[in-house]
Amino acid sequence: MKMKAVVKTKAGPGAELVETDVPEISDTEVLVKVKATSICGTDVHIYQWDKWSNTRIGRKKLPQILGHEVAGEVVEVGKEVRKIKVGDYISAETHIYDPWDLQSILCQAHLGEKMKILGVDRDGTFAEYIALPENVCWVNHPSIPPEIATLQEPIGNATYAVLGEDNDVAGKSMVIIGDGPAGLFSVGIARLCGVTNIFLIGEWDYNLSIGKIMGADHIINIHKNDLDRVEYIRECTNGYGADIVLDMAGAPEAIREGLKMLRRGGRFTAFGLSPTSTIYIDYNEEIVLKGLQIHGITGRKLFDTWYRVRNFLSSGRLNVYPVITHMFTLDEFQKGFDVILERPRKAVKVILFPDEKELKEAQKRLEMQRSVKGER
Amino acid sequence: MKMKAVVKTKAGPGAELVETDVPEISDTEVLVKVKATSICGTDVHIYQWDKWSNTRIGRKKLPQILGHEVAGEVVEVGKEVRKIKVGDYISAETHIYDPWDLQSILCQAHLGEKMKILGVDRDGTFAEYIALPENVCWVNHPSIPPEIATLQEPIGNATYAVLGEDNDVAGKSMVIIGDGPAGLFSVGIARLCGVTNIFLIGEWDYNLSIGKIMGADHIINIHKNDLDRVEYIRECTNGYGADIVLDMAGAPEAIREGLKMLRRGGRFTAFGLSPTSTIYIDYNEEIVLKGLQIHGITGRKLFDTWYRVRNFLSSGRLNVYPVITHMFTLDEFQKGFDVILERPRKAVKVILFPDEKELKEAQKRLEMQRSVKGER
Amino acid sequence: MKMKAVVKTKAGPGAELVETDVPEISDTEVLVKVKATSICGTDVHIYQWDKWSNTRIGRKKLPQILGHEVAGEVVEVGKEVRKIKVGDYISAETHIYDPWDLQSILCQAHLGEKMKILGVDRDGTFAEYIALPENVCWVNHPSIPPEIATLQEPIGNATYAVLGEDNDVAGKSMVIIGDGPAGLFSVGIARLCGVTNIFLIGEWDYNLSIGKIMGADHIINIHKNDLDRVEYIRECTNGYGADIVLDMAGAPEAIREGLKMLRRGGRFTAFGLSPTSTIYIDYNEEIVLKGLQIHGITGRKLFDTWYRVRNFLSSGRLNVYPVITHMFTLDEFQKGFDVILERPRKAVKVILFPDEKELKEAQKRLEMQRSVKGER
Amino acid sequence: MKMKAVVKTKAGPGAELVETDVPEISDTEVLVKVKATSICGTDVHIYQWDKWSNTRIGRKKLPQILGHEVAGEVVEVGKEVRKIKVGDYISAETHIYDPWDLQSILCQAHLGEKMKILGVDRDGTFAEYIALPENVCWVNHPSIPPEIATLQEPIGNATYAVLGEDNDVAGKSMVIIGDGPAGLFSVGIARLCGVTNIFLIGEWDYNLSIGKIMGADHIINIHKNDLDRVEYIRECTNGYGADIVLDMAGAPEAIREGLKMLRRGGRFTAFGLSPTSTIYIDYNEEIVLKGLQIHGITGRKLFDTWYRVRNFLSSGRLNVYPVITHMFTLDEFQKGFDVILERPRKAVKVILFPDEKELKEAQKRLEMQRSVKGER
Repeated sequence: MKMKAVVKTKAGPGAELVETDVPEISDTEVLVKVKATSICGTDVHIYQWDKWSNTRIGRKKLPQILGHEVAGEVVEVGKEVRKIKVGDYISAETHIYDPWDLQSILCQAHLGEKMKILGVDRDGTFAEYIALPENVCWVNHPSIPPEIATLQEPIGNATYAVLGEDNDVAGKSMVIIGDGPAGLFSVGIARLCGVTNIFLIGEWDYNLSIGKIMGADHIINIHKNDLDRVEYIRECTNGYGADIVLDMAGAPEAIREGLKMLRRGGRFTAFGLSPTSTIYIDYNEEIVLKGLQIHGITGRKLFDTWYRVRNFLSSGRLNVYPVITHMFTLDEFQKGFDVILERPRKAVKVILFPDEKELKEAQKRLEMQRSVKGER
Repeated sequence: MKMKAVVKTKAGPGAELVETDVPEISDTEVLVKVKATSICGTDVHIYQWDKWSNTRIGRKKLPQILGHEVAGEVVEVGKEVRKIKVGDYISAETHIYDPWDLQSILCQAHLGEKMKILGVDRDGTFAEYIALPENVCWVNHPSIPPEIATLQEPIGNATYAVLGEDNDVAGKSMVIIGDGPAGLFSVGIARLCGVTNIFLIGEWDYNLSIGKIMGADHIINIHKNDLDRVEYIRECTNGYGADIVLDMAGAPEAIREGLKMLRRGGRFTAFGLSPTSTIYIDYNEEIVLKGLQIHGITGRKLFDTWYRVRNFLSSGRLNVYPVITHMFTLDEFQKGFDVILERPRKAVKVILFPDEKELKEAQKRLEMQRSVKGER
Repeated sequence: MKMKAVVKTKAGPGAELVETDVPEISDTEVLVKVKATSICGTDVHIYQWDKWSNTRIGRKKLPQILGHEVAGEVVEVGKEVRKIKVGDYISAETHIYDPWDLQSILCQAHLGEKMKILGVDRDGTFAEYIALPENVCWVNHPSIPPEIATLQEPIGNATYAVLGEDNDVAGKSMVIIGDGPAGLFSVGIARLCGVTNIFLIGEWDYNLSIGKIMGADHIINIHKNDLDRVEYIRECTNGYGADIVLDMAGAPEAIREGLKMLRRGGRFTAFGLSPTSTIYIDYNEEIVLKGLQIHGITGRKLFDTWYRVRNFLSSGRLNVYPVITHMFTLDEFQKGFDVILERPRKAVKVILFPDEKELKEAQKRLEMQRSVKGER
Repeated sequence: MKMKAVVKTKAGPGAELVETDVPEISDTEVLVKVKATSICGTDVHIYQWDKWSNTRIGRKKLPQILGHEVAGEVVEVGKEVRKIKVGDYISAETHIYDPWDLQSILCQAHLGEKMKILGVDRDGTFAEYIALPENVCWVNHPSIPPEIATLQEPIGNATYAVLGEDNDVAGKSMVIIGDGPAGLFSVGIARLCGVTNIFLIGEWDYNLSIGKIMGADHIINIHKNDLDRVEYIRECTNGYGADIVLDMAGAPEAIREGLKMLRRGGRFTAFGLSPTSTIYIDYNEEIVLKGLQIHGITGRKLFDTWYRVRNFLSSGRLNVYPVITHMFTLDEFQKGFDVILERPRKAVKVILFPDEKELKEAQKRLEMQRSVKGER
């Protein structure tokens, strides 16, 4: 059986829509018919084939299907599959963990040494079908439509970034650096979880305006303001600095500035990856003498964040429609990458639908949301 | 100098408005002119002179001024006072702690062995003036008006009850038992802090309707419903039971039912005091085999909760006006106790103002709030 | 193929050594040749067929093989088994958890609703062979001999009881109620983890003397002392009471006394099961007003405690040989139950060996330990 | 009244023994007759007048008495002093905190913005008498002799470094980088608190041999070994890397190596100060993608660590005599700095006694300890 898929065919920029075989599943896997899949920053890196992609994925693994954020329906299950059934409406955890890795034993399954990543270490979700190990399948709440269900994975990242390991955010101040999807989801979750003073720092007016809708109290565009940002945040926090800073962007300058924005004894969440892995940091002043907690995050706490995100969304407490700026069919994937790469930036989350009918229904829901809100 | 005060003059029901001396302050105390003070359940117990009052306070300490929730202005400071200045707009922590108690050393100052309680162990706030040790004074955010500032103390209780020691509430379900002030404040804070499924159980339609305004998802009146409440909560939580149960009421039946409502591995917060201190509990089934965490709460984490509550209120994230049902002058204190004791219940929080001008201004603010909301 | 097994054949006291079929394994199970298995309090309850056994197990499940603490070698694996291999030297987690239970998702797999217990809900380990689901198999450190490896399960209980959820024990005082195996293991772990003042309360001189060897600072025999135990503990803790109390016994009187022994803001661990599930407690005074944390424990944190226990034992930091008082062949199981039930008590942990050679080697190791220590 | 004191008289290397006035105390201070005081790395920095000293202390504050680790007897108290009495045997917290700093409110008093440091921001302890604010005085357990009581401050640092914020060390592996006093105390505490695999990395055989006595399992001299240290630690930890790394030294190379030694999801404690505040770090690989927790530490958790350290020492669980290598009279302070600066290093902790009688008694106790141990 054949299917359409967006494939990285060669080591270099770009991707192609090709016809390829529907994947065969192993005994412990399930086959999923994709309803919606969304473009993540990682996909953009691989699409552009930057230095990281070249090292991390490399020429040898190609061709490879892109994508890892997904919602779909199970159409076939392997012989050893126990929990998931044909017809289940699921999304997928991207980190294919080994339950017997030391980290899994210690409730850090997302950090296991032997972990493989969907769309990076094996074929991804930008296709009509995808094979998934049963143990990364998450059965969706039926009230969450596909264009939102596919976003649960990055919302999980943001949830872990906002709550950290101590969940200590209610009544606190938080600076969120980065106005991409991770930053904007974080604003929404921070608002939902009782952060009482939210600063969003970014560089695109369009994205920052969505940050405002998501609940940011302060919007700072690094290009337009001749503001002393560190000073501004101190002024807004009684002279102390913020309780928490999340770096969701990875720019070395921003990381250093973020550390300066923190009060003594604050928490810094390191989520964004720097273009150069090695950066310099004012170790004594900003880490040791400030008594800081730094929390590096890759992935999401399994499956704790999935449980919370399901509840955030199914309860209606968290509305992420404002972050969805574009929806296309899978065939139009090129438009998706184009709008994301356009500058000045005018796109945040782009959803792709293999089936045009799913797209049409999603568009109706998005329209309704926008008319209700009466904005944008 | 003389002042008016609401005084418990004898061991028995009731209280009297008397003229008494303005208190003299020691070198480590400040004198506060009361702008607003509010009636707490503890005051009602003492007013009614129940068994607990008779034991805890006793005949010997009388006469004693009632009250412990307050907002006011500092008009005099003792010689050894360092932080607080004349003119400061303050509220007060009720638990007069010893900073060198073992508990204080371990960040549990509110639990110290040597702690004294305002309005219980010494004269309280239902007066024109009150003497306060400097180290329980909390300088209020100027944006918080007196009728709200006086409520920070019980809001702090609710904050500690909701967040517990682990702050782990975002995306979780919570049952709040009790539709008095503590329960209603808890609903508002639970909503603010990302609890995604809030059940409020109470017995008065009036209070429950305020719980709805504060953000409860489910309202359960124990009198009217022939509902199996444990079963209902299981149904609404995928068959597991709630993640968290707060008992803010203290009825032994409710405590036992609350334990049953919890899922295995959940958290039970024991805040309400039972009419009979000793109660029976299904220890094996509900505590041991369920792997429960039970957290007894008296008071508020110092001064952590004060910091959060200030931010909740000054940010506008938390609106507690719906919980204020009555406001009177201090002279009219009798009306306050009367409405609280009326059945069926039609009152929640009652604020008293020694100065009629303060009352008038507060009434204007309350009117404005109600007209904006267009409700009640 | 046939094997010997200790079987509960009928609803009533006792057990029998019978010849029965070697169990057949399902595709996800492994077959283990038992090297050593140990008698737990639960086995004694079932042996005596008390009220709990009659309700929890019931007549219908019989005949059933007893036992759940084990060390052995894998001799066969099911078709779907991925991690465990023939020849692996393993022990087993008793709680057969469902990885998709809500509790499992939230890192509380040992509390899952759908959990089954080895030796309670299915055939146990008092046999030459046992069938085990792969996902409860724990590969032992090769340096840990079978008579110790079989004890990892109850040592895991004690580890979780001592460390609790916050691991906050170093430099603290701890009262351990109960001088059975759980209490004695807890003493050793408390000592190992930096508890600086350990009180062991029990009723048998023999067991208490082992508690001394395991590291208790204070030994209290409830029969011989006319001591006011609560007062004694207050005196030894500067008048405050203990930081932590573990109840490993379950006697209602002891539970109530244990609560009294705690300082305000302390932690009470509820591990022992009471003969009557429902007990009365001084709820107001001991839980609410004291600001207590109560932690119900059944089972062990998975697989966190297994990791720690392996390290405790393989590093030589924890020596549990003093707790092993008797070793027999499986055929002699009756002697094991007899010594455990003898009064005054002269036995703690009894290990059974299906193969006499294994017993002989274990005896040599035990002798060596005792001669080195020069005691008992 | 006059006294002897070791004073930094001018901006440049060295210090002088001078006769100066006994300090006058303010109303909130106490005057302490010093029994023992010990030389810390900070004193050595100031003695050598390095770049940090020149910036942090500067010319203007001179002359200033050195030292901040102390044990002594209170001989006079200010009028507003409430807790401390003449005759009290005390030690002192070095961080003179403001109880109303935001950090103090949030149980991080040691990190307050307005904090002053003894011996850095005001006169220190290398003198016959010292004036101390009451609220940094800690009443010592009478069983702890002065030469040990003066060490409680740095032992508190080590306690906080080892336990971190989560106390999660029992059954874990820990690498301790640095064989100075902080590293050696950390080894002892790690051993006491149940760390099951302790690696000590240093550069002086003499110090490392003391690390062995304190309980390190592995001793690594960076000069002598041609070992691949990262590889060695991986081999000893099943290929994963250590659970926890403490950097107590501050060498940039060691910090970077320490990060590499950690397993994914591990904890890195940043205690040592780097000679150059700004260093480069492999941010992506070692912090973000590894999901690390980094905890910067300056000072000790107040007064939590003091409580634990008192219990560690008074219970006899922790013996720090091996770390005391030299004792002199205050007059001989020059010898103290000389032995610390001698290379190869042959000194760890040096205690100074203003009164020769105190020295003599301490020497007797030290002799006894060494004869009991039969070592060194």
